[in-house]
Amino acid sequence: MDVACLDLEGVLVPEIWIRVAEATGVPELRVTTRDIADYDELMTYRLKVLADKGITLSQIQAVIAEMGPMPGAADFLDWLRQRFQVVILSDTFYEFAMPLMAQLGYPTLLCHKLQIADDRVVGYALRQPNAKKASVQAFHQLNFRVVATGDSYNDTAMLGEADAGILFRPPANVVAEFPQFPVVTDYAELRVAFAEALAR
Amino acid sequence: MDVACLDLEGVLVPEIWIRVAEATGVPELRVTTRDIADYDELMTYRLKVLADKGITLSQIQAVIAEMGPMPGAADFLDWLRQRFQVVILSDTFYEFAMPLMAQLGYPTLLCHKLQIADDRVVGYALRQPNAKKASVQAFHQLNFRVVATGDSYNDTAMLGEADAGILFRPPANVVAEFPQFPVVTDYAELRVAFAEALAR
Repeated sequence: MDVACLDLEGVLVPEIWIRVAEATGVPELRVTTRDIADYDELMTYRLKVLADKGITLSQIQAVIAEMGPMPGAADFLDWLRQRFQVVILSDTFYEFAMPLMAQLGYPTLLCHKLQIADDRVVGYALRQPNAKKASVQAFHQLNFRVVATGDSYNDTAMLGEADAGILFRPPANVVAEFPQFPVVTDYAELRVAFAEALAR
Repeated sequence: MDVACLDLEGVLVPEIWIRVAEATGVPELRVTTRDIADYDELMTYRLKVLADKGITLSQIQAVIAEMGPMPGAADFLDWLRQRFQVVILSDTFYEFAMPLMAQLGYPTLLCHKLQIADDRVVGYALRQPNAKKASVQAFHQLNFRVVATGDSYNDTAMLGEADAGILFRPPANVVAEFPQFPVVTDYAELRVAFAEALAR
């Protein structure tokens, strides 16, 4: 029995910040790790935009509550959980992600925490640097084989550390920069890629 | 968001080997980690008994398929998953436990593998020594706080490594030997103990 490590946004649920940008009418919030690879730089920018525009945590949570998993994501996850021990590795925050986890049957999620004051997002605490890669290393220390999938720059260290890494619907620049990872574009292909990794 | 590490047998599901002993009419299989603390010694004994009595993997799996979680276990686990990132740490084997995981909504399970040949259990592969304690250490390395619960000798290293350790329905000898751990006897008390650990 191997461990499957899944990125969250772009793999199981839509990009949270893009939905928030759309719902609040603030296009500056559309920027993601696909655009700025340095997560600290990205989050500092996002928090500045939230403060400038006066967007509250409650507003963001209301948007997220309306989001569901991507079509087919819950079925894929149910399939995967019968074959792997699944852990979601994400650079999002528990304050954002837990309503989405409820809709996915509460898979185990390792991510980060926000700092909240008076319904405003005033900061964030990254649990550790390179958290996704460190989590795969931890499962290796526990003598598990790891198969991982993600869609973006911030997943590539995790994919490289895993015994098998799969890119799911990545942008063209990530495909070009990381040709070592196979690319799949839908859940049917992702099932095949996981099944093949299991058989190896 | 903290990590909750749960023992499986005696906490969420009945003791698998005791059920197998009852169903097969082989009382020698009633021995558990509550009786023999050394797991390798215990498993070597169990495998010898299985071989001597000609008990197949299919027979054992049929018994396990009839077992369900303990009354209230699924509700407790649903409650816990909304408040913690839950990981089951068990010294059982995937070949035995996965039908029970299906009935609990596939929480992440870290345990061991059997070696099977011709429908017989011919051996087992412990993923690593002191696997439960090592898993808590791994979550500590990932900067998570860990609250753990278990019922038996083989849980005490895990409970000691965790930031809070709770004994659930332990036998008297474990209570006497490990007075440092609080003891709870039902899921209502266990919820309170986890909620208090979260608040600290």
